Amino acid sequence: MLLTSAIRRAASIRPDGLAIVSGEQRRDWRETARRVAALAACLREQGVRPGDHVATLALNAPKYYELLLAAWWAGAVLVPLNTRLSQAEMGYILRHAGVSALVVDEHFAAAGAQLGDEIDSLSGCLALDDAAYARWIAQPPMEAADPKPDELAGIFYTGGTTGQPKGVALTHLNFAFAALNMQRDLVHDTQTVYLHAPPLFHLADFGIGLGVTLAAGAHSFMDRFSPALFYERLRQDGVTHLQLAPTMLAMVLDAPERDDAALARIRSIAYGSAPISQALLRRALDAFPQARIQQFYGMTESCGACTMLPPSCHQLDDGQAGKLDSVGQATTGFELRVVDADAKACPPGTPGEIQIRGPAVMRGYWNAPRETQKALRDGWLCSGDAGYLDEAGYLYVVDRLKDMIISGGENIYCAEVENAIARHPAVSACAVIGVPDAFWGEKVHAVVVVREGCTLADTELDAHCRALVGGYKVPRSYDIRETGLPLSAVGKVQKNVLRQEYLQNKGGSR
Amino acid sequence: MLLTSAIRRAASIRPDGLAIVSGEQRRDWRETARRVAALAACLREQGVRPGDHVATLALNAPKYYELLLAAWWAGAVLVPLNTRLSQAEMGYILRHAGVSALVVDEHFAAAGAQLGDEIDSLSGCLALDDAAYARWIAQPPMEAADPKPDELAGIFYTGGTTGQPKGVALTHLNFAFAALNMQRDLVHDTQTVYLHAPPLFHLADFGIGLGVTLAAGAHSFMDRFSPALFYERLRQDGVTHLQLAPTMLAMVLDAPERDDAALARIRSIAYGSAPISQALLRRALDAFPQARIQQFYGMTESCGACTMLPPSCHQLDDGQAGKLDSVGQATTGFELRVVDADAKACPPGTPGEIQIRGPAVMRGYWNAPRETQKALRDGWLCSGDAGYLDEAGYLYVVDRLKDMIISGGENIYCAEVENAIARHPAVSACAVIGVPDAFWGEKVHAVVVVREGCTLADTELDAHCRALVGGYKVPRSYDIRETGLPLSAVGKVQKNVLRQEYLQNKGGSR
Repeated sequence: MLLTSAIRRAASIRPDGLAIVSGEQRRDWRETARRVAALAACLREQGVRPGDHVATLALNAPKYYELLLAAWWAGAVLVPLNTRLSQAEMGYILRHAGVSALVVDEHFAAAGAQLGDEIDSLSGCLALDDAAYARWIAQPPMEAADPKPDELAGIFYTGGTTGQPKGVALTHLNFAFAALNMQRDLVHDTQTVYLHAPPLFHLADFGIGLGVTLAAGAHSFMDRFSPALFYERLRQDGVTHLQLAPTMLAMVLDAPERDDAALARIRSIAYGSAPISQALLRRALDAFPQARIQQFYGMTESCGACTMLPPSCHQLDDGQAGKLDSVGQATTGFELRVVDADAKACPPGTPGEIQIRGPAVMRGYWNAPRETQKALRDGWLCSGDAGYLDEAGYLYVVDRLKDMIISGGENIYCAEVENAIARHPAVSACAVIGVPDAFWGEKVHAVVVVREGCTLADTELDAHCRALVGGYKVPRSYDIRETGLPLSAVGKVQKNVLRQEYLQNKGGSR
Repeated sequence: MLLTSAIRRAASIRPDGLAIVSGEQRRDWRETARRVAALAACLREQGVRPGDHVATLALNAPKYYELLLAAWWAGAVLVPLNTRLSQAEMGYILRHAGVSALVVDEHFAAAGAQLGDEIDSLSGCLALDDAAYARWIAQPPMEAADPKPDELAGIFYTGGTTGQPKGVALTHLNFAFAALNMQRDLVHDTQTVYLHAPPLFHLADFGIGLGVTLAAGAHSFMDRFSPALFYERLRQDGVTHLQLAPTMLAMVLDAPERDDAALARIRSIAYGSAPISQALLRRALDAFPQARIQQFYGMTESCGACTMLPPSCHQLDDGQAGKLDSVGQATTGFELRVVDADAKACPPGTPGEIQIRGPAVMRGYWNAPRETQKALRDGWLCSGDAGYLDEAGYLYVVDRLKDMIISGGENIYCAEVENAIARHPAVSACAVIGVPDAFWGEKVHAVVVVREGCTLADTELDAHCRALVGGYKVPRSYDIRETGLPLSAVGKVQKNVLRQEYLQNKGGSR
């Protein structure tokens, strides 16, 4: 309810203020609210009823953000698809989530048409190219359906530890709390111009965007990441608020297009998914003299950030800089604890599993009661990350208990990639690990054992994987061997041994 | 749920930071959280079960704030009593709300004991004098009951237009949203020291206090209002955040104890219930060079503020100063509308009834379905106030449709006072009106018609009223007459005629 009402409020308190300021497109909140209501009316006309699951597949653009809000306005449940998934993965999600309508932009017309044919539950694929958009927004607007706080608002799929994506079921209340936190922690106000640089289908970006909408601020969009486009947006749109992973931050600071005047106007930089190095922070503090720099830690299951490392901990050469390895303290409404294998709280400084509680924690995994039961215990979300708290409640993430790689800000679950590789007939066994990469933080490396009597080339495995999983999950290097994998006493692959081998040999067969 | 978790979070992220800093008393969040949990355990031991209604009757003090939080910690529903009510009014509320436990401090020991005897539902009265408090906090703490967001959190009684107080039923979700808004709008952080100058039983004060607790800031308390005590608190406690009605603001600026250094440390002043004059604002801007000055408008039924007039509208000699007559724009999560008698939206500039919607709007009136149905229509709270919106969504309150007087920040419902007067055997008819008062904003004036053959003195009526209603509701002046009241065509007392008569005669028989 809160977010549809936030759109009306923005149109009421700032009717002539910019809501969209993105390259050629700029429109005020009055017009943006009208368009959202018109798009919702078109969804309704095309059969979308309150409670229906609506999937979206599009690149960042004003019309995409309006479409997401319009789906809520019409009372639908959002299922935003990661544009980098394979066709097979998208098909799995559409079936699993019981999606009844898929909306795609012009970049995904072919994929959408094919999915529309394949998936029985879909009534078809709605193409929201620019011509259709122009027609849709000319329709008479509808009144918002205004869902209740505990109704389902979205199912956001993340990679699964069991090898299949899991659908994180989030309510309107979850999003309301997440948006309120983002609005406050990032100090969004009516003067905010937030650049949607990460993709909108990621909760990290969508959630910050909702905070901007709560504050009746303005949205700017990049449909792909490039330093040239980044600086164009900063200059054209007067961007004030950024979300950039450390790798992206380094990229824009190193770019030949670097524009110091544009950087100097930035008031806020949010980052996450990896710590920032002291060297990069030093450069950032110089480049962004006005910016509050903040780290966030969270996950789709907590509807985004649940901790924040404040600007005061991003000052070098002072007492707080020692906190730079921490992801910060629990943000408003969240509680953290670290527990041992018996679910007993660990004393400060002792690592255990990080658990999270609060009003933004997901309702559960969609249609996966067993996974939900494992993830939610007595109201606590079991993050699958290992870490410890210090005496002052600062959280330090030391390892991921769930077998996951973070590469360029994307979560990649090893089990998904392993499942894909294992489907090749020449593969006897395999293990996927994350190995250090100077630019992406981590990259995907696969150790593959071939069946006796078979041969297998990197290129063949590469093509095989590309057909099954999104390109960003495809291993960047392979170690193809004929002997077995190192196993623990209980028969589990010893990935730490594989990582050591990799570091000693610096890569495998390529 | 959010507020009990906020206490744990504060103890986790700021264990050694001050939570209470009030005269001789100062303690950190670790100890404060422990005391809240120990007080809750004592309530539990004395029979308070989750869902029980617990009334409180006390003057502002650290232990009172801890008690209120402890009642939530134990899962109970708060019924804070206005300390200025008559014994008869308190008895009505205790019965109507089905209160099972009453906790009083040393100032209300006698009243508490008498109410404990009178009210059957009460198991007795729990005295929380300083000796008892010392015993209670030495008990082993309990785990929080952690109520769910949509469970009842409190019943706050306000005067009723029908002559009896109405119990505003508020959920934990209502309080969570209200506290989140207060935290953000007043920019509370860990450095906040908020002075509880208004009484804690008022939602306006309690709600701001919850915002301070969300931010893990500190609380200071005044048990009565006097300029000398005010300046003592400012100096001793390092107060940074104030809530002061314009009358109180004028009082402290005029006081001989005025301490400009202490005023200069104030970072935030919130006010409400009456607009601030340009003259007073000018003095305040001089006296508080660092303060953000903000006006709020709201009611118990909206769990506190639903609009805010920002600091930028409190600058004199600039374009925005013209907004000073406005109560501001809808705060985050709230929507406002102004409707005519047919519930149609009025165009900008046209007055109608102010209606409010949002996640902090009450569930309804306790045990009063007919009143609830009148107050809540399609999710909109009918405020009973008349006003208009301008083109930019600024709200202007022009009159109160409900027959109410605001005197020194207290709401006084005319019907309650009229009911009390009418119970005197010599009274034939009466009408109570608010008349202008330079200091209190409005004061209570009664026009009374005596029965034929009877006589009645002001002093006699005064004593009669004091026995029935709180002292602040007792008329400050009477106009005792033998002829009838001016009636409209439909037989309604024409209070506007009575107001004009008063202004012409400047008072009645005293």
